[in-house]
Amino acid sequence: MTTKSLSLHNIFCLARDAMLNAGANQENADAVADTVMRAERDGSHSHGLFRVPGYMSSLLSGKVNGDANPNMQFRTPVALHCDGDHGYAPLAHRRSLKVLADAAIVNGVSVLSIDHVHHFAALWPEVETLAMRGLVAMACVSYTPMVAPFGATKALYGTNPLSFAWPRPKASPLVFDMATAAMAMGDVQIAARDGHAVPSGTGLDKAGNLTTDPAEILKGVLLPFGGYKGSHIAMMIELLAGPLVGETVSFASKMRDIDDGGVAQGGQFILAMNPEILSGGNWVEQSEEFISKLTKMDGIRLPAERRYQNRKNTGPREINHDLLKKIDAKLA
Amino acid sequence: MTTKSLSLHNIFCLARDAMLNAGANQENADAVADTVMRAERDGSHSHGLFRVPGYMSSLLSGKVNGDANPNMQFRTPVALHCDGDHGYAPLAHRRSLKVLADAAIVNGVSVLSIDHVHHFAALWPEVETLAMRGLVAMACVSYTPMVAPFGATKALYGTNPLSFAWPRPKASPLVFDMATAAMAMGDVQIAARDGHAVPSGTGLDKAGNLTTDPAEILKGVLLPFGGYKGSHIAMMIELLAGPLVGETVSFASKMRDIDDGGVAQGGQFILAMNPEILSGGNWVEQSEEFISKLTKMDGIRLPAERRYQNRKNTGPREINHDLLKKIDAKLA
Repeated sequence: MTTKSLSLHNIFCLARDAMLNAGANQENADAVADTVMRAERDGSHSHGLFRVPGYMSSLLSGKVNGDANPNMQFRTPVALHCDGDHGYAPLAHRRSLKVLADAAIVNGVSVLSIDHVHHFAALWPEVETLAMRGLVAMACVSYTPMVAPFGATKALYGTNPLSFAWPRPKASPLVFDMATAAMAMGDVQIAARDGHAVPSGTGLDKAGNLTTDPAEILKGVLLPFGGYKGSHIAMMIELLAGPLVGETVSFASKMRDIDDGGVAQGGQFILAMNPEILSGGNWVEQSEEFISKLTKMDGIRLPAERRYQNRKNTGPREINHDLLKKIDAKLA
Repeated sequence: MTTKSLSLHNIFCLARDAMLNAGANQENADAVADTVMRAERDGSHSHGLFRVPGYMSSLLSGKVNGDANPNMQFRTPVALHCDGDHGYAPLAHRRSLKVLADAAIVNGVSVLSIDHVHHFAALWPEVETLAMRGLVAMACVSYTPMVAPFGATKALYGTNPLSFAWPRPKASPLVFDMATAAMAMGDVQIAARDGHAVPSGTGLDKAGNLTTDPAEILKGVLLPFGGYKGSHIAMMIELLAGPLVGETVSFASKMRDIDDGGVAQGGQFILAMNPEILSGGNWVEQSEEFISKLTKMDGIRLPAERRYQNRKNTGPREINHDLLKKIDAKLA
């Protein structure tokens, strides 16, 4: 694989220029580019520059509004709503997360419902931002159907990621961000390309039978992680990130979509809680003792550890040359 | 198996008398007995009369306060706290859930943190109660360590159940209530007794190796459902039902426990959300269309369906004779 060295600043500029070129205004382009740069910085390549052609496609097709002007409103002092104005999620976050945090800090809990938004990034930035303010946070989105409910053989759920962050006064937050599909579709594609079997439970073939052959799963359907229990979590996310926030579930989002290579419109659910209020003030010692015990166990690594490690490196990143050519071609 | 027919009223009276006899006051005895009766009514035998000897043991040992006077306070208008006064959870629920619901109905979201409580029942009653008021609800508790974090070989997490309910204006709520252990310890014991293998991923033997032999798992440790992803959910529940609500995590709860056959002291986290406010008012059509599509899929049954089916039968229940003898012996 040929790569090119790009500084984090240059990664940001490349993503920003791509967004501007595809029709986004300055504010939307900046917000998306910052999300892309932070993904590359942390080693989340699948959410970095890799997504830029898709981001551009949906601006160029007109599906996503590059001039989106997300509007945050208080429905109550703790129920915040942001209408994404059919733009990408990062600008909606910039305009809402600080207010959401303020509401949770004062009241103990707050919820942000976002609708009319296109979320094409990882889910950890939102919850990490809230945890840096001392809050416990949870977020989820749903996408177009790719996952069969446990027991069924046809897709109904999206890959429906869930993220969670726990604040740590003297350390980076404890964060996880995971799809509720047994395996990311990209990883199934890679296994098929390389001729590797995948674990049973990853997906079904076209006839609805369990298979460990990734090529057959690509013709069939993914399954949720963890059998019927993971399927319950995926179902819960459909409801939280869809109807609860005033948006559609995955199958209805898909019906509205124009399939232009970018992400469908949907909703996002974000919950913020202040442990200082909810615990009565004695949460730090208990949680730090727990995390210390967990990390000392053989075989355990905290979920965000690799990301935090990557982040310490402020130097240039090696970017796939073919990807850069693909972005350049769209810019031309 | 010899059984005896008992009406639901007689099941309630038996449980109530057992609690009174073991030293609970009328109010605490009533609240526990109602929970026991509702479990038997719904066919949740493992949370019904089966638990009564354990409930009695911890009253008799003095670990659980039979005169508990749970005290609900507003820390903010949406952050409610209930000190369980070292009693069983049902009375704390009777005194808190209605107020929690009222707070969520008005404000869109509310949280109840419960500490100093002994939770020995299923988790669906709390969330079902809230969903009957039109609210989306989530609850969790943690117990003593029985589950190894994914990647480790020693127990750190409890079986850490999570329950969720979604309200349905014209039907019973959509509810799930599941342990985050791959399998309940009781089911591993039954498989060992009957000589059946359990699925790989259920647990580890004493040396820390994966095994499908339930007898070896009984000497070793359970695993979380769904590999590392289920392990993240179990970890989240340790934090939500422990430090977030001002209580201990599983391993610290265990250290405080006197191992009298009843459940350890711990905390409970309950979240209530009003979809009418959070969605802007358009949640019913979307969620009902989704649930309808889900239930029409081949192989799908909604998680609480069997419970609701059992509930329609208001007649007597067949109760295990040995269990009745065991309760009688403790009553004598």
